[in-house]
Amino acid sequence: MKEKVAVVGAGSWGTALAQVLAENGHDVTLWARSVPVADELNQRHTNKKYLPQAKLHPAIYATTSLEEACYNKSFILFAVPSHAMRHTAREVKKVMNKETRIVHAAKGFEQDSWKRMSEVLSEELERDQASIAILSGPSHAEEVIQKSPTTVVVACGDQEVAKQVQYVLMNTSFRVYTHSDAIGVEVGGALKNIIALAAGLVQGLGFGDNAKAALMTRGLAEIARLGKAMGAKPITFVGLAGVGDLIVTCTSTHSRNWRAGYMLSQGKSLSVVLDEMGMVVEGVKTTRAAHALAKHYQVEMPLTEQLYQVLFMDKEPEQAAKDLMLRGKTNEMEEIMETW
Amino acid sequence: MKEKVAVVGAGSWGTALAQVLAENGHDVTLWARSVPVADELNQRHTNKKYLPQAKLHPAIYATTSLEEACYNKSFILFAVPSHAMRHTAREVKKVMNKETRIVHAAKGFEQDSWKRMSEVLSEELERDQASIAILSGPSHAEEVIQKSPTTVVVACGDQEVAKQVQYVLMNTSFRVYTHSDAIGVEVGGALKNIIALAAGLVQGLGFGDNAKAALMTRGLAEIARLGKAMGAKPITFVGLAGVGDLIVTCTSTHSRNWRAGYMLSQGKSLSVVLDEMGMVVEGVKTTRAAHALAKHYQVEMPLTEQLYQVLFMDKEPEQAAKDLMLRGKTNEMEEIMETW
Repeated sequence: MKEKVAVVGAGSWGTALAQVLAENGHDVTLWARSVPVADELNQRHTNKKYLPQAKLHPAIYATTSLEEACYNKSFILFAVPSHAMRHTAREVKKVMNKETRIVHAAKGFEQDSWKRMSEVLSEELERDQASIAILSGPSHAEEVIQKSPTTVVVACGDQEVAKQVQYVLMNTSFRVYTHSDAIGVEVGGALKNIIALAAGLVQGLGFGDNAKAALMTRGLAEIARLGKAMGAKPITFVGLAGVGDLIVTCTSTHSRNWRAGYMLSQGKSLSVVLDEMGMVVEGVKTTRAAHALAKHYQVEMPLTEQLYQVLFMDKEPEQAAKDLMLRGKTNEMEEIMETW
Repeated sequence: MKEKVAVVGAGSWGTALAQVLAENGHDVTLWARSVPVADELNQRHTNKKYLPQAKLHPAIYATTSLEEACYNKSFILFAVPSHAMRHTAREVKKVMNKETRIVHAAKGFEQDSWKRMSEVLSEELERDQASIAILSGPSHAEEVIQKSPTTVVVACGDQEVAKQVQYVLMNTSFRVYTHSDAIGVEVGGALKNIIALAAGLVQGLGFGDNAKAALMTRGLAEIARLGKAMGAKPITFVGLAGVGDLIVTCTSTHSRNWRAGYMLSQGKSLSVVLDEMGMVVEGVKTTRAAHALAKHYQVEMPLTEQLYQVLFMDKEPEQAAKDLMLRGKTNEMEEIMETW
């Protein structure tokens, strides 16, 4: 069945999801913040800033009007950066229908409140949190556009909604798995960006693959610890939205967070790195969020702590890496049992 | 305290471990199978075949005599390929002392019997399995030689033995964690080579990072499933000897198994690939072992199954990759809950 779907946000991920939906035969409206981007999408079927190589489906209709995008749709899929979620949702609320199903694909927390994106959406859209679906998993937009096989999860308290989202997005190269642990999927997607930043940093410092694998293993445990404290099922983090997304984000050259960490290791300041990237680096804000959440939930997050000190307290990256390497227990099983 | 340690096997990993031990001030004898390798080690302090770049510690004494290597030692560390373990152990038994502690660092199963290496050692050395320590974790030899930070685990039923091994190997760049799940650590180290082979294969076929992350996530679950059936604790596979080793083996250019998979994807036959590699590719034999073990324990291992068909049944890699991608459940949580 052909569905009317709005994708809110025409960055790389929003555009790639619009492409999947259009290829699946749905009626897709893509909301872009800027007029030139919308015009380029409609006239040339490209989005050079975010997906330089992509030839987009001509049926994707772009607009800068949230009303035109969101009114009378079966699904609204939010793909805006986490800092823009509350404001965007507030505007969407004014023009959307009550029965429209809500999905989001953002990977971060709200600054200062440290709320999850589904909490923000729940508040602004006046919806039960359990009705909001979260899309996550190892999925670089560039590869989705190329139809390279990709697997994602869609998590929702209401499994009916998860199945409906699965139905509209699923095809032979884009495999969608339903999931019931919305908190776990949401937290995993956000926190892995911290580990990717740290991975870029240690690789930039000249550490090797052994050290990077150790850092990712420790990072996964750290994510699971905080997730568990926040109400997630630890086991979610061994799946696509945990270790899967962690792997793709830490090992792919497509990853912005990894690149930002790498640039930091080369002695550039955080503000210079963010300027040069020109795109949102969710991991930087997420480090601040995780640092606050770790404190609030009294969870030990040594990797987040060291990265926080490098990003915001001028700690030398070399020293942070050393402090991280030399820390902690000498029995792995004890450490693991405390986490999982 | 200075300990007398024999390292049996002068391949890349045995040589790297001898280097760590020598740097830690212990008295190291390295047993090499071939006279030229032993001579090169003693005279030039190099091992060009296995570690082309390495400058080795001059205190490492190499010998081709197992008696000279193993008689009257505190520790014997076996670092031979899995196919050579039984025969080597039988010879070592004749010359070793009863109280010598035993460690092994091999990552594979015995062909045809499908026994774990600690079972083989237990039988040949007439030792309780619980007294044999297993060294594993994300540790490319090349990086250990360069003193790039590396973390490993040493697992043993007898935690006293694990702690003693930790003591002789530990230093600031080589971090050793003790572990109590010997079966899990042993099985994780062996099975990850299968996933690395498969990862090389799909990357060679042009699949992207999204597909590789999905494959590794699925692979990890598959390892945990078989491990659990064999008596391991599933949680061990989220640690260094599971996901850590999986990451380093699947993402590093140092990995032989990954390279062998990549070469297979380019249309080369298995025998040509093995010829060209010139070193043991444990993952090939391990695929056969895991295939038999999966059948024996009635565990579902779709990735192993497909790889087995490519390696030994002439299945087209493309078709195997497709069959893998399209299989299975569409609820990830259900799949995860069955495994972990």
